[in-house]
This record gives sequence, structure tokens and C-alpha cells, in this order.
Amino acid sequence: MSQQTNDFSKWYIDTIQKADLMDYTPVRGCIAFKPDGYELWEHIQGEMDRRFKETGHRNAYFPMLIPESFFQKEKDHIEGFSPELPWVTEAAGEQLEERLALRPTSETMIGHLYSDWIKSYRDLPLLINQWANVFRWEKKTLPFIRTSEFLWQEGHTAHVDEEDARKETMQMLNIYKEVVEGFLAIPVYDGQKTPSERFAGAVDTYSIEAMMKDGKAVQAGTSHYLGTKFAEAFDIKYLNKENKHVHVHTTSWGTSTRLIGSVIMVHGDEQGLVLPPKIAPTQVVLIPVGPWKKNPAIIEKLDEIFASLKAKGIRVRLDDSDQSPGFKFNEWELKGVPVRIELGPRDLENNQVLLKARDEQDKQTVELGAVVEAIEKELEVMQTRLYDKAKAFRDANSHTHIDSLAQLHEHLATSEQNGTIPGWVLAGWCGDDACESNVKEETKFTTRNIPFNPPTEKHTCINCGKEAQHTVWFGRAY
Amino acid sequence: MSQQTNDFSKWYIDTIQKADLMDYTPVRGCIAFKPDGYELWEHIQGEMDRRFKETGHRNAYFPMLIPESFFQKEKDHIEGFSPELPWVTEAAGEQLEERLALRPTSETMIGHLYSDWIKSYRDLPLLINQWANVFRWEKKTLPFIRTSEFLWQEGHTAHVDEEDARKETMQMLNIYKEVVEGFLAIPVYDGQKTPSERFAGAVDTYSIEAMMKDGKAVQAGTSHYLGTKFAEAFDIKYLNKENKHVHVHTTSWGTSTRLIGSVIMVHGDEQGLVLPPKIAPTQVVLIPVGPWKKNPAIIEKLDEIFASLKAKGIRVRLDDSDQSPGFKFNEWELKGVPVRIELGPRDLENNQVLLKARDEQDKQTVELGAVVEAIEKELEVMQTRLYDKAKAFRDANSHTHIDSLAQLHEHLATSEQNGTIPGWVLAGWCGDDACESNVKEETKFTTRNIPFNPPTEKHTCINCGKEAQHTVWFGRAY
Ligand SMILES: [Zn+2]
Ligand SMILES: [Zn+2]
Repeated sequence: MSQQTNDFSKWYIDTIQKADLMDYTPVRGCIAFKPDGYELWEHIQGEMDRRFKETGHRNAYFPMLIPESFFQKEKDHIEGFSPELPWVTEAAGEQLEERLALRPTSETMIGHLYSDWIKSYRDLPLLINQWANVFRWEKKTLPFIRTSEFLWQEGHTAHVDEEDARKETMQMLNIYKEVVEGFLAIPVYDGQKTPSERFAGAVDTYSIEAMMKDGKAVQAGTSHYLGTKFAEAFDIKYLNKENKHVHVHTTSWGTSTRLIGSVIMVHGDEQGLVLPPKIAPTQVVLIPVGPWKKNPAIIEKLDEIFASLKAKGIRVRLDDSDQSPGFKFNEWELKGVPVRIELGPRDLENNQVLLKARDEQDKQTVELGAVVEAIEKELEVMQTRLYDKAKAFRDANSHTHIDSLAQLHEHLATSEQNGTIPGWVLAGWCGDDACESNVKEETKFTTRNIPFNPPTEKHTCINCGKEAQHTVWFGRAY
Repeated sequence: MSQQTNDFSKWYIDTIQKADLMDYTPVRGCIAFKPDGYELWEHIQGEMDRRFKETGHRNAYFPMLIPESFFQKEKDHIEGFSPELPWVTEAAGEQLEERLALRPTSETMIGHLYSDWIKSYRDLPLLINQWANVFRWEKKTLPFIRTSEFLWQEGHTAHVDEEDARKETMQMLNIYKEVVEGFLAIPVYDGQKTPSERFAGAVDTYSIEAMMKDGKAVQAGTSHYLGTKFAEAFDIKYLNKENKHVHVHTTSWGTSTRLIGSVIMVHGDEQGLVLPPKIAPTQVVLIPVGPWKKNPAIIEKLDEIFASLKAKGIRVRLDDSDQSPGFKFNEWELKGVPVRIELGPRDLENNQVLLKARDEQDKQTVELGAVVEAIEKELEVMQTRLYDKAKAFRDANSHTHIDSLAQLHEHLATSEQNGTIPGWVLAGWCGDDACESNVKEETKFTTRNIPFNPPTEKHTCINCGKEAQHTVWFGRAY
């Protein structure tokens, strides 16, 4: 059995280290993002940020340190976050009078400031986003997926009423879906979180959920309608057109560097990373093969291809190092480069190159004169193909025929016996917290979300058998 | 006397608040960067980042928390920074075994990791940059210029030898000069810092120094040759071509959000901000005047101009709010928008608009058909004009005729009497720390740098009268 199937965690850790994406550090749960890892984040940032701005949001930056008293103001919020907070207690040789938390998220600091910034309906909607580092001191950490410090963006908006705020909540969830599906080639289910899985302090939380190759879920983005809860806690009011002071309705929404981990766990294979072309730091690698050093025409030709690709904005590298072609093939496959071009003396004679897509077995023979077009086309086709493969995998492991806890247990037993992944289960839920937590306790399956467009409707609760209020995705999650 | 001349600090604080660039927060010395302030930083980032990448650097991200023991490894470094460090001592309800500092800069964490990442000469040069928040808990703070938390970039590179590292140090200083002069329109003196003003742990520090309108200096960027000091402290060695393990030579270099403060203090005037076109969030504002609401052709025409400017990538706004033209003029002048276009019924009849450059007194009459070209040209011309004005101001306040401390005292007395700014003084220095610190004690003039290209050479020490080893800029500094 391969390492990826046999020990997915080990495969993941080995792969991200060998591919040079990150390194551990002596600070518990804090990793260093190496250039190849960080560049994935830069590409994600670029896609997200452009869309935020197109929809009228502007970036700002808020203090990282948050006074303890701010957290006390919204009781659900402090309950949710206090177990994970690191605290600054001393600075410049003196004890602080009040402890300062390293922000786990910025609703409180921003709530405090918005109460000052917002005076009238003319100030609304207030649409602000922040790119920042945040801290959650969690027990179990996993590079990119769950780290003590991570990078993210957090949008914080204020609106005149519920309708406008809910529209924003959905708009941002849709932007997340668009980027994660269209750019990272990761299919997601969008839907609403159950109350127990809500963001601490939210009225409603919505998420997009992605399935990794081990069948576990990653919550790839969340968008929250916060109602007037933070507005009440921080006294954020505006003068409406009727000359009355009323509370604003706020939203917040976030995606983080865990998206890097998701790309790897969704597309990677036994040979290493498989990066969708749109996000790959290097999209094409050119490799001379055969006795190329004796034949300068080969490097000349590759230089020419290099220049043509570069001119088209394609991220290309030429590997003319002294390593053997086989070594180079492995190296660049490990790093997930989408397209490899090989050119040797015999190819040159035949006026052709070999083109290898990272996720396909066979090489294509391409005429030298058509190589740039062929590469462009392959990058496009591969982007779609990776999405389709991921979707086929996700769909094959999304089970809709399980109606009871007994059947779920049976399914899990069969999976374990066959060495297959359990995947996710679409099931009915009566709406009772106790049913949800019993499923979790017995199977470690938690509610992922209540999908907006379930493949089918389920009518009885998987736990108690009563009438279902909701059709819910259940699965194990990171 | 105007507020800017009379009380520069008050003018500065008033201006950045009225122009909506920042807000104070309850956390000592930490400000919120509001969208108009943060966008200035985004434009600076864009210019810097592009140049870093063009010169082969890649971005990465390192943990913000640094174990106390790391600081102990380089003794000059800990001496320099320990008085300003905030410490995390508790996390997730437990006392930490070792205190973790909020990074004031990342040489130590990066040194620790580079010792692992660098094995052979093939790994060199290692050229990495980080965009991050950093903390220096200083007594006196001033928004943008000196805050407890600020945003910056820090480059950290490792090289095979001194020559290569020194070349990098100079290259990055030159990039800083290029961006600050060409993009922010701020003239700078580039040169070497005296030993007492060096970065804690550097062999040599180089800087670019800018003069604010009150005659005080801002160190706008620094680049350090660190020799093998951090390589020795963190055991960063590589196997050279002769098969020997030798220490790398490292550099670091940084610019920060204090550049935002510098732009304001260099170009701002009594009416508010004056933003160089290249950095302005809004470059052009279109304002209908006269009884424009009765004449829909006016807004139609402005919409047309808006679309044409937008298509050219110019950042434009149309202010069709209900405020009076006079109110709008003040508002957009306060925000420093470089070009204003006015169009009213009479202008339309005459087939013209009025164009007002933010830094000029008179309005230009421009034919309607040529308005886009006129705006494009004005943005270009204004960028250069602002640089030229700032340079003329700086040069007029750069004094080269002062040869002794007595003369400096006299100069300061005259300045105070006349209500003029003392500016900077180019003077000789024997190289003795005692002379430097005596000048500082008596006049608060500190050494800015030893310029690479001084306007003239000075031959005697301003303090002791002995032979000068260096020609140095002295001035008061932020
Ligand atoms: Zn039930
Ligand atoms: Zn002297």
C-alpha cells in the first residue's frame, strides 16, 4: 500500500517538507512559511484581494494586541476564544496593568473602533478587510491546517439592516467559493453551520467545506452574520433617516493559510505536490535531456521557449543544472510543477518536444513550432481536469444512502475492513443538539454544514429517527 | 503664523486625523490604519515588492514570537532591543516555560532557521524578504513615525563572502532611494551611519535620510551589512567549493509604515495632505459646480470623463453628493487629491473644464476634448514638481557653512529668533564618539549619515576642531 493511502498524515508532513514549503520552529505550533509555501499564499491573496476590492471593500490594519476587557464585552465570544489566547503581560521591563491578548480574530477591537467611526446612515455600509497574523494556541497542530500563529484575512462590515448584512454574508461566501473552486480547483459544499459549530458570537455562520484525499473535511472559508450582537456589546449605533439612533448589523468572514494545506491534501499524490496551474509558483519547467551539453542548439531552443512563455506571463523555469534528467523529473514532480517540457538531441532532429502534465501518465509529443500554444492549452485543460478529478473523488465519497446510526457504524466498519476512506454522509437531523453530539461521540463524524443545494433531501434524523428538520453533511474534520 | 509653521506636531496630528488616515486605540502606542492610510502603504508595498522580486528575492513568513534564549545569542542585538520588548508569558491558561518576545526584527529567528537551510555554496545567495508587523515598546510615540506596533518589510540575505553581501546591502539601499525619490517624491541623502547609530548587531549600517517640513530628519530606510556576526551566533555555515565549512555573510534591510508619515510631513500644507500622484489613493476628483442638478448634461459629461480615466487605470472619483462645491473643494484638498476637475453650466457652454492641481494656486482652463490628456500630463508634471519643491526646500535648509559648535549654537539662536527651521548641518567629524555625543547633548543634533556624495568636503571636526575623518550630516531627528 502506498504511503498516501496507508498513512496520510505522514505522507502530508513528508511531502510539504520535501517540497520545501515550510519548516518547524522551536515555538510550539508556529511554522516558518518558506518561499515556495508563501508564494501559494501570495497567489491566493491576489485572487481574493482583487475580488474584495471589486465589491467595494477596502483594506485597513488594526492593532494585534487586544485588551482583556474587550473580550469580556461579548460573552459567547470570550467563552469561545479564551481557552486559546496567548497573553502579553510585560513590556519594556514593566508589568502591564491589563493583560493584552494576541488577536485570535478582531471583532472586539474593530467593534470598539466602529462605534466611533459610524455616526450616520451615510457612513454605511462600512466595508473593511484586514490581512493579518492571528493566534490560537491549540493543543494539536498541523502545518498550514492548524497552527498557533497563522495568516488570514478577516472582513468586518457594518450595515443599516439585517437584509443588507445578510446579502453581504452571502456575497462573501460566494467569492470564497469562486476562488476555492475556480482557482484552487477544490470543489466545495456551501451551506449553513449548525448552532454548535457557529463562530463564537455569530447569529448564523456559513461555510464552504472541502474533502481531503483521506476523506476528512477542511472548513475552507466561513462567513458570519453577527446580527446586532457586537453592535450591542460595543455600542455601534447610527442615526437613521428617521433621525433615530439604531444598532448596525455586522458581518465578518475569513479565509486563512489553511487553504495551502487544503490544496496539497486535495491534489497531491504519491510523487508529491500536484499544483493547479493557476496557483503554481512555477507553472512550466524546461529540462534538456540526452547529451545536451554537446549540442548548444538545445539550450538555445529552450531559451527561446523560455522567453516566449515569460512574455506571455507564464511562470517558467529552465533547469540546466548538472543533475541527471531523472533526478530533475522527480524533483519538479515533487514540487508539483504542472507542465514539464523535455528536449534532447533526438527531439530536436525530429523538430519536437515531449510535454508531460504532472497529473497524467503519458507524455505528449508536440511540434516545436506549436509548443507555446500547446503549453498554454495544457495549463488551461489541466486546471479544469484537476477540479473534475477532485469533484469525482469527492462525489464518490459523499454517501447519501445512510439513514441511521447503525448504518453509519456498518459503513465505517466496511471502510476500515476494505481500507477505503469513510468520506462524508448526507443525513437527516432533527435539530436537537443531543443527536448531533451523540453522532460525534460514537463516530467522530461532526456536522459539516447544511448544504444550500443537497444532492437529495433526507427525511429522518440519523440519530433518533424522528422527522428531520435539516439535511446535513456529516464527516470527520481537521 | 500658520498652524503648520507654528506648531508642526499639532498640524501633523490634526491633519492625519481629519484626512481619515488613522485612529488612536486604547492600546498604548498602537494605532489603527484606516483605509486611506493603509492604501498608501499598499501602494508603497507594490512598488517595493516588485523591485525585490525583479532582483531575485522571494517572500517568506517567519514566526512572530521569538524565544528569549535566541536574543541572548548576539550580545549587541539583545542590548539594543531588550529595553523595548513586549513579552508573552502565558498562553491557553498556562505559564510558558520560556518567555516569548514579540519580534522587534527577525534576525535571530531567521538566523536559527538559516543555519538549517544553508548547507552548501549552491544554496547561496539566499535572498528572502518578509512583510510583517513588528513591535518596539517605545516611550514616545507618534502615529506612523514611531508606534509600538508597526508594519514593515525586512529583507534577510546570506552570501558566500563579504563582497557579495556588501553588494546586496548597497543594491537594496539603492532600491529604497529609487522608490522614496521616484514614487514618494521625497529627496534623500544616502550614506553610512556612524557606529553609535548602527543597527544593534551590524558591522555597517547605511541609510537614506529625508528632511521633513519642520527641518527634522526621518530615517526612511536602512540597509545593514551584518558580516559574520549573526552567522557566528547562530552557526550558519556552508560547504564552500574547497570543501571547507565557512560562515556566511549576512545582510538585512528594512522600510516601514513611517514612510506614510514622511510623505505627509514632506508634502503636506496648511490645507492638509498633498499626495504625490503615484501614491494617491484618489488621483483625480471630478466635481460638478453651479446649478448642475438642473442640467443633466453636466453629470453625463463627468461620467464620460470618469470612464475614460478609469479605462486608463487612473484612480478617479466623482463627487456628486449634496454638499456645496466649496465644502467639496476643502474636503478633497484636505485628503491631498492631486487633481480636481470642475464642470458647471457655464463651462459646458464654453466647452471647457477647470483643472486645479493640489499644490498650485491657479486653475487651468482645459478644452473638454483634451481633458483626459491634460489630466494625464498634470499627474506626471505634478509628481516631478513635488519632488523638485521638496528638494529645493531640503537644499535651502541643508547648511554647509557651519564649522564649529559655536557657529551651530549661533545658527540655532538665529533660527529661533527668526522663527525659521534650523534644518541640517554638514560638518566635519574627527571620528570620536565623544565629539558626536557632545554635539547631541548641546544641540540635540545627531549624526544622520556620512553621505556618499556630500555637496562639499569638511576638513575639521565641528566639536574639537581636529582634523575631520568624515563629512557628516547633523540634524534633529524623529
Ligand atoms: Zn434527532
Ligand atoms: Zn572631534
